[in-house]
Amino acid sequence: MPYPDKFEGFMINELGKYKDFKKQEFKPKKFGDNDVDIKIECCGVCGSDVHTITGGWGDAPTPICVGHEVVGKVVKVGSKVTTLKEGDRAGVGAQIWSCLKCQNCKADNENYCPHMVDTYGAPYPKSEDPEETVSQGGYASHIRAHEYFVFPIPDEIPSHLAAPMLCAGLTVYSPLVRAGVGPGKEVAIVGLGGLGHFAVLWATALGAEVTVISHSPHKKDDALKLGAKHFVTNGDKDWASPLAFKFDFVLNTADMTHTFDIDSYLSILKVNCQFHQVGLPDEALPAIKPQQFMPNGSSIGASHIGNRPECLAMLKLAAERKIQPMVETIPISAEGCAEAVDRVKNNKVKYRFTLTDYDKAFGA
Amino acid sequence: MPYPDKFEGFMINELGKYKDFKKQEFKPKKFGDNDVDIKIECCGVCGSDVHTITGGWGDAPTPICVGHEVVGKVVKVGSKVTTLKEGDRAGVGAQIWSCLKCQNCKADNENYCPHMVDTYGAPYPKSEDPEETVSQGGYASHIRAHEYFVFPIPDEIPSHLAAPMLCAGLTVYSPLVRAGVGPGKEVAIVGLGGLGHFAVLWATALGAEVTVISHSPHKKDDALKLGAKHFVTNGDKDWASPLAFKFDFVLNTADMTHTFDIDSYLSILKVNCQFHQVGLPDEALPAIKPQQFMPNGSSIGASHIGNRPECLAMLKLAAERKIQPMVETIPISAEGCAEAVDRVKNNKVKYRFTLTDYDKAFGA
Repeated sequence: MPYPDKFEGFMINELGKYKDFKKQEFKPKKFGDNDVDIKIECCGVCGSDVHTITGGWGDAPTPICVGHEVVGKVVKVGSKVTTLKEGDRAGVGAQIWSCLKCQNCKADNENYCPHMVDTYGAPYPKSEDPEETVSQGGYASHIRAHEYFVFPIPDEIPSHLAAPMLCAGLTVYSPLVRAGVGPGKEVAIVGLGGLGHFAVLWATALGAEVTVISHSPHKKDDALKLGAKHFVTNGDKDWASPLAFKFDFVLNTADMTHTFDIDSYLSILKVNCQFHQVGLPDEALPAIKPQQFMPNGSSIGASHIGNRPECLAMLKLAAERKIQPMVETIPISAEGCAEAVDRVKNNKVKYRFTLTDYDKAFGA
Repeated sequence: MPYPDKFEGFMINELGKYKDFKKQEFKPKKFGDNDVDIKIECCGVCGSDVHTITGGWGDAPTPICVGHEVVGKVVKVGSKVTTLKEGDRAGVGAQIWSCLKCQNCKADNENYCPHMVDTYGAPYPKSEDPEETVSQGGYASHIRAHEYFVFPIPDEIPSHLAAPMLCAGLTVYSPLVRAGVGPGKEVAIVGLGGLGHFAVLWATALGAEVTVISHSPHKKDDALKLGAKHFVTNGDKDWASPLAFKFDFVLNTADMTHTFDIDSYLSILKVNCQFHQVGLPDEALPAIKPQQFMPNGSSIGASHIGNRPECLAMLKLAAERKIQPMVETIPISAEGCAEAVDRVKNNKVKYRFTLTDYDKAFGA
């Protein structure tokens, strides 16, 4: 094992060849006083991983080790670290650094810091790492992260369930709480996949009345099991009419937005409420005229993961309510990574993958 | 004078021939118990009038009498009218009826009532008028309206200045107050035309710090005179960089949105704030990816005029602060209407037209 000088991970060497994982060494950023090293125990497989390595989101530096739903054991802490100690179980999500000094960081919006570093494929600023090392993710033996972006995992949550909460979970938790979702609110979750199934769990736990809108009638049972009160298939031409002006928030987790009849989705919103996008498709939305927002003064927006307080609150909620996401596991290996990303790409997972058995791949 | 059986107005008989105004008679809706007849004294010329009669917004019933910024004297009130009496000076804006019974109406969102009737070019529902008469606007001798959509004009505001407040003014006042614009807030107004100049006046009066963003450097003096603290020309390629994350609200009043670099306009918003559209261009916005909202979790929305409480509050604010919009007047006639709509179409007005001298055209 090359740790602590080098980490080892299953990496992609050419975008597009998204199933060609090779086990390779890479050099982590310089260890800083606020940094934490984690020996990884498991990592979720996120749609972002697939969009990145297929090249769907455009260019990215290679070789790249993706994965930003990381859970493991703290094996080293910097001299200034106060929030964690060696031996703690902790996780890292889709963001690994921000300046913590700017207007956004100071307002608990570090997830919108203009200097932020994504967990993989992003160079650190020179001030933080003289070599401007590119960050690498969690399909790997270890991860090094600033403590602000490392979250203690409550004992009640098994690692393989905690992992996908750290990107998928937080990505839907944050917009739900920022939209004031809670008792007395009606929420529609569009799409029941990795993101959508977490959205149903959180919105229900927060006390809202949840409707799932899906093109897959066979997902009804799962939707209701997860906590939804209503299930609507949008295959029917007039699906939206009975829902006019019904929802305080529509959270769209689907990827096929370019095929959507946007007017229908806007029509189901109460006045001045938002159609909110968390899936990040490769293609643009259908052309929109401002007039389309006018029947209810609605809006379209999107968000980027969530902040640290939201992540901690989400984990607390999950622990207290014993929330059970539906997660499949697969042992990490070149073949395991390939199978996992391919099934995520083709929506053949219920509803999230976690790569496990890291000890077998990287040693105990 | 044919009143009260017929009204008389300057009408367009074919969409596209938007300067061919002819003085013609038309039949108003059946007089109801809550209706008010107003002998019109003056009427503002709105961009909507132009979009309608040029056919830019698509089909509309002809012959049509446009105009939805109406001020005049109440000459008749229905048996159930309680808010106005004969002789009162009162105005009508861009909406002339709603059901006042639905969820939206009951929540002071009658401007989003799905059964609403626009002030011109819209058929009344059979329940309100057995003949389903099409509404006709204020380039006319009289207007008939449900009292809920008739607003007493405070004595302090001259009629020709009050008129354009009733559509242009309210259309920007409502989204400003719904966005919480007030002391401590930074607001950008994009475009200094009829709508924009009202937005600067209101946002300033509400206590916000206002920046005008315009492609016309020569409008700087007017912007500052109206109350703006800052003026930015968006001709410069990098105009947006110094404004990153600055504004709590960006109100876009410009019509040329399809030519906008949307990323620049979104980039100047604080986290989770809105780029809000009140101009209603003929063309769609540039194609948008949800990713474009992600740097600050922003949104794009639009709104439709405002509600009655907002209109009354706006008029009160204008009266108390003696707010002076910049309004040109032109006597109503076939030629006057043609000149006014043509100059509005070509942005050759500072900043709003009011048609006046109705007595000369329609008799005292």
